[in-house]
Amino acid sequence: MFDPLETLKKYISFPSVSTDPAYGEGMQGARDFLTQLFESMGLEVEVVKTPLHPIILAKRVGKPEWPHVVVYGHYDVQPADPFELWDSDPFEPTVLGHHLYARGSADNKGPFMVHVSAVAQLLNENPDIPLRITFMVEGEEEMGSPSFAGFLDAYKDTALKADMILLSDTSSPSSDQIAITTGLRGLVGLEVFLKGPKMDLHSGVHGGAVYNPVQALVELCASLHDEAGRVNIPGFYDAVVDPEDWEREEVNKVPTTEAEYKAFLGVKDFYTMKGFSPFEAVRFAPTLDFNGISGGYQGEGSKTIIPAQASIKITMRLVPDQDPQTIAELLKKTLQERCPKGVEISFGKPEGGAAYRVLPPFKSGKEENSVLAKAFKGADRAIEDVFGKKPLYLAEGGSIPIIAKIKDVTGLDCLMLGLSTVESNWHAPNENFDLEMMDKAIQVSKQTLKACCS
Amino acid sequence: MFDPLETLKKYISFPSVSTDPAYGEGMQGARDFLTQLFESMGLEVEVVKTPLHPIILAKRVGKPEWPHVVVYGHYDVQPADPFELWDSDPFEPTVLGHHLYARGSADNKGPFMVHVSAVAQLLNENPDIPLRITFMVEGEEEMGSPSFAGFLDAYKDTALKADMILLSDTSSPSSDQIAITTGLRGLVGLEVFLKGPKMDLHSGVHGGAVYNPVQALVELCASLHDEAGRVNIPGFYDAVVDPEDWEREEVNKVPTTEAEYKAFLGVKDFYTMKGFSPFEAVRFAPTLDFNGISGGYQGEGSKTIIPAQASIKITMRLVPDQDPQTIAELLKKTLQERCPKGVEISFGKPEGGAAYRVLPPFKSGKEENSVLAKAFKGADRAIEDVFGKKPLYLAEGGSIPIIAKIKDVTGLDCLMLGLSTVESNWHAPNENFDLEMMDKAIQVSKQTLKACCS
Repeated sequence: MFDPLETLKKYISFPSVSTDPAYGEGMQGARDFLTQLFESMGLEVEVVKTPLHPIILAKRVGKPEWPHVVVYGHYDVQPADPFELWDSDPFEPTVLGHHLYARGSADNKGPFMVHVSAVAQLLNENPDIPLRITFMVEGEEEMGSPSFAGFLDAYKDTALKADMILLSDTSSPSSDQIAITTGLRGLVGLEVFLKGPKMDLHSGVHGGAVYNPVQALVELCASLHDEAGRVNIPGFYDAVVDPEDWEREEVNKVPTTEAEYKAFLGVKDFYTMKGFSPFEAVRFAPTLDFNGISGGYQGEGSKTIIPAQASIKITMRLVPDQDPQTIAELLKKTLQERCPKGVEISFGKPEGGAAYRVLPPFKSGKEENSVLAKAFKGADRAIEDVFGKKPLYLAEGGSIPIIAKIKDVTGLDCLMLGLSTVESNWHAPNENFDLEMMDKAIQVSKQTLKACCS
Repeated sequence: MFDPLETLKKYISFPSVSTDPAYGEGMQGARDFLTQLFESMGLEVEVVKTPLHPIILAKRVGKPEWPHVVVYGHYDVQPADPFELWDSDPFEPTVLGHHLYARGSADNKGPFMVHVSAVAQLLNENPDIPLRITFMVEGEEEMGSPSFAGFLDAYKDTALKADMILLSDTSSPSSDQIAITTGLRGLVGLEVFLKGPKMDLHSGVHGGAVYNPVQALVELCASLHDEAGRVNIPGFYDAVVDPEDWEREEVNKVPTTEAEYKAFLGVKDFYTMKGFSPFEAVRFAPTLDFNGISGGYQGEGSKTIIPAQASIKITMRLVPDQDPQTIAELLKKTLQERCPKGVEISFGKPEGGAAYRVLPPFKSGKEENSVLAKAFKGADRAIEDVFGKKPLYLAEGGSIPIIAKIKDVTGLDCLMLGLSTVESNWHAPNENFDLEMMDKAIQVSKQTLKACCS
């Protein structure tokens, strides 16, 4: 008999930190565990080699006319440090009340195990169900999935020839208000370097004669937003597709007040692009944010220099249909044009991924008979049945670049069930997964998969 | 027989780094050396205790009607690191050609020893010269002279009851074009802190809702200069006294071209306040410079956060008659008024000193009979005699806050002979002192002192 909680606890106990070579054994352990688990469920397992961490494919094969659902997950987790801020050992799964505490419990081992459990139960209860299922579990998500694009290319016409993707790597407003994620913002990052004089200068002897590169940097960066809080880069909004009215309406159903959100953030006031509430802005508005700035003397006390250089890390969250490379080039061009003489500007290599958007077929008004449409409808009904509340259809502000990449390479869309909340402490100490939500979500996943082949 | 070079080499060999307690023995050694030296010259020595490093007073007393010249110097030196960039041991004085290489050789042991040597020779040649001389040598100049104001207060009516100050702690355009320094810019520094959300935020989940404190900081800082390169703080220029025409003319006699200065700085273009050449700007224009900026993630790669805070170190070089505290308060008020809601601003304690200006009596057109006027005239003539070129009368862009403090507390003005050049490598590896200049300068100092009592 498949025990979801015990299986999850075992899976979590492997410290599979992908970014740190010291955790190679934990990565191998997680892979071996999944391989055995999938084999015990009667699936065909293939461990796909990549330049770094292998990808696991596990298939329930069947007749070609059966619908084919690919379930995505990742077996790697964030580093657990700072360890001293954890109330329990991050790799020793600990149940307290109805929460399981451990690194990877919410991101992404718990939510992924929901779908594994659903499939295990489904196959047990209904061994002949006419549904093909493929689990695709990567080990590099927490490091930006460098091997994933190559994998998609290699498998798009075979294992990934399917009808849709199912995954849970996004979040919901609360553990009883489930969200189906309808969009993810894209992301493109650029580091900008300014060079002034050839060495740090004495600000007394030379102050007044040269453009201080920190001054040039603050002036350039200050020019990147206008009075209305919009990004002031010509062409930045050209490709933006406005959200539909129903998308804004869904956001306004989120059961959080502005006062609560302010208190959570610890700010006295919001700062949003004109025409967007804070809840809308974080989901539908593209942004330009400064992640880190650096230049000159940063130690204790003072040092009276004109620094030789300064730099800033910028990332932009993108919305459909902004293209990451195009936007990065617009930023570079704008900064180059605005850069004062006497200071030299250069750039790092822009890196990023596009935004993703999936409109639930029945929200667009047309009844569709695709597997994806059936899955959306099945999930909608199941969430209302099991959680007692209809799901919200929410775009999410964060980015999962591989989702747009999957769509781009395979043409497949995703049904994304949000199975964590802000209390899950993603990437932070005391990460946890709600076990009551887990039980309910397994039922939702089962009904959704059943709906796919109805 | 007093040997200037051998005496200087011995003085330099004591590693008297005031900021580092590990060099306590070097500090003590330099003090003991000076005490014995002054005693061997027949002077009355008093070692004045302070909260940190003692100040040495050495007096050649005499009749009350004799002119009284106080010679200022400091026996402490900058730290010598990075040691690996020196071509010789920084505390092992090394003569190469006609330069002496060692930490403190130019700042300030060499130039100070010029005046000691001059006095030694003068007293030897002319034991009855009707001149009172007091050497005042502090040990905290390289740490901002924290004990000096208290010392001035305590001695202003006794040892410092004098006619003028003589010192060499400024520079000249070249070793054969000597400058008499007629002004020093003041300095006031302020650190500015901005606080945004209560913790670093995920820029995907929350980007678009809050004012990024780095954005607020760059916008605030960008507002501090206008299009003409002027400091954009209301009231900043109110107290500024414009330089006289002859002061600008002296600067334009400096034998450096703009092309040479650009090449030295390694910049393609200058950036000066409107109406000032680069050479004028660094001497006569007040500035606002950013010495260091910091906020958010500064490591390798990217981290997609909205930082919780950001900060910047600002210093302003001041000209007569800007008051450091007033200017710091204007900056604070301006930033407070411009700071957006949603971000909190706070400040460090402003620290600084006023600008100083001394007009050579004969430049103002009136013949004066003061000791200072005689000293200026004597130095002018001696420099032309010994170096073969008339001195330039140059305001200097750097700051020696104690000079304005001396004037403020004792009412005394300074004759400042510039005895180092840009090649002297102040505060840098391979600091050196020009020995040919030293020999000539001793003659200038002697003639100047003689002129004081003529």
